[in-house]
Amino acid sequence: MTKEEVAVAMKGLQNRICKQLEELDGGSVFVQDLWSRADGGGGRTRILQDGKLIEKGGVNFSEVHGEVTKMMRNNTEITGDSFFATGVSIVLHPRNPHVPIIHMNVRYFEMDNGVYWFGGGIDLTPHYIVPMQAASFHRSLKTICDSYSPEFYPRFKEWADDYFYLPHRDETRGVGGIFFDHISESEALTKSQILEFCLELGDTFPTIYSEQVKLGRDKTVSEQENDWMNYRRGRYVEFNLVNDRGTKFGLVSGGRTESILMSLPKNAGWVYNIQLESDSREQETLDYLKKGIEWISVC
Amino acid sequence: MTKEEVAVAMKGLQNRICKQLEELDGGSVFVQDLWSRADGGGGRTRILQDGKLIEKGGVNFSEVHGEVTKMMRNNTEITGDSFFATGVSIVLHPRNPHVPIIHMNVRYFEMDNGVYWFGGGIDLTPHYIVPMQAASFHRSLKTICDSYSPEFYPRFKEWADDYFYLPHRDETRGVGGIFFDHISESEALTKSQILEFCLELGDTFPTIYSEQVKLGRDKTVSEQENDWMNYRRGRYVEFNLVNDRGTKFGLVSGGRTESILMSLPKNAGWVYNIQLESDSREQETLDYLKKGIEWISVC
Repeated sequence: MTKEEVAVAMKGLQNRICKQLEELDGGSVFVQDLWSRADGGGGRTRILQDGKLIEKGGVNFSEVHGEVTKMMRNNTEITGDSFFATGVSIVLHPRNPHVPIIHMNVRYFEMDNGVYWFGGGIDLTPHYIVPMQAASFHRSLKTICDSYSPEFYPRFKEWADDYFYLPHRDETRGVGGIFFDHISESEALTKSQILEFCLELGDTFPTIYSEQVKLGRDKTVSEQENDWMNYRRGRYVEFNLVNDRGTKFGLVSGGRTESILMSLPKNAGWVYNIQLESDSREQETLDYLKKGIEWISVC
Repeated sequence: MTKEEVAVAMKGLQNRICKQLEELDGGSVFVQDLWSRADGGGGRTRILQDGKLIEKGGVNFSEVHGEVTKMMRNNTEITGDSFFATGVSIVLHPRNPHVPIIHMNVRYFEMDNGVYWFGGGIDLTPHYIVPMQAASFHRSLKTICDSYSPEFYPRFKEWADDYFYLPHRDETRGVGGIFFDHISESEALTKSQILEFCLELGDTFPTIYSEQVKLGRDKTVSEQENDWMNYRRGRYVEFNLVNDRGTKFGLVSGGRTESILMSLPKNAGWVYNIQLESDSREQETLDYLKKGIEWISVC
């Protein structure tokens, strides 16, 4: 399988996901921007704003290649002289605080020395954590993982706990999910099978999200709940700008800033040293933002 | 002069600035939080929220010391085994988009090997740039600088242009100001004189800001102007979380997160790929966000 074939598969995935998310939203459609990168490659950024369900969301495809710059070498694990990277990256910020923020990414990386790997992940960031919903989310991911390797879910779940974590807050971003990187063929899985795994994750994504959505999208919302959503979105911004290696790679590799930062919400806020009632649902959510919770066993 | 004496001077500066800013605000007062750092030292965080003029602002004093950790060594220019750092740090986010955001910092750093330096800066981030106001701001800074060294203003002005810059946006944060770091005694200036320079900057800060404030605080505000303020605040968040070395140092040296991130606004927002009218004041402001504008000569 060539890198070009992987890119074609990623493009197809973007098409299918956008179509299904438009149906789920029911109010707005994706607007597409084509862009090209000065040093090679480009992308198809698709943004949906002010929908019925989604306040701001993006489903990006990109396929970039070129010389490995000094900045990339210093900031990433990349070796070799030239690289090729393709993938689909999604962040959806819903309108309603009872619907979680969701993120998905699948990506393929190849260097001129022949080294390649796949990476990706899905993680869920509820503004209000409901353990049953977190468990259902993790169960869906486990089902897909298990059909490729029994090792995937436990390993990738722990990886997500470690990756989607804000050290300066001692908080996870949300209820986690799965994260994986540097996955290449082994005795157990061929290269095609790993690509298939990535595509299946992507193709199941709209179904997984719609299960989360249906429970919250029609709930009435108080001012306090909206303020809390704004506050939690602030944490999402912090993670993406301070901690996320994907965002960092994009910005230092000369990616298109508007496409990379589509992950930031329409509105977010910071209140100094927020004080919560100890028995509030907001405090309950904070208490759940810890590594190592086995959601499937909890519920 | 001992490091303890510098810390006492910084504390006094914080007191004087807070008093004057409360008078300027006329509606709210600073609330103080004392905190201590597990590995040595602590601080006095003072926050003013929901004032008449200031929507959210902080004037922080800190004095931290301890072992130089591996994380600090990897992320900063620090050598030696143990360090001492003290300073005052200010960010003010006004309510009215016609009043600029302002930042000031003066700091002192000393290592156990006897190496010390002063650093600091003031920079102005108008939501709408008015060249006359930018020029007046720069003139005030030049006057202070010139009374210590004719080299200070041109050197520190250029340094600010380089420091308060977002490479991923190819924009300066605002109209700049001055920035300096690693300043220690020389043939021209004693250690006491550098401290005096820092204190004079700090003591002139409320006057400098009130000149900017009086021109905008009572202006009526349209919805479009408020949206633009929110959007520009998004850039302020990006700079602080992606580019600001001070924020990075604070977060990796085990500083208090809530004190460091007091610099983030109550609200901010991100609109995908904003489109501006070519003759709008918003576009005019964007066009001014460039390095190397000599505001004093322009107006």
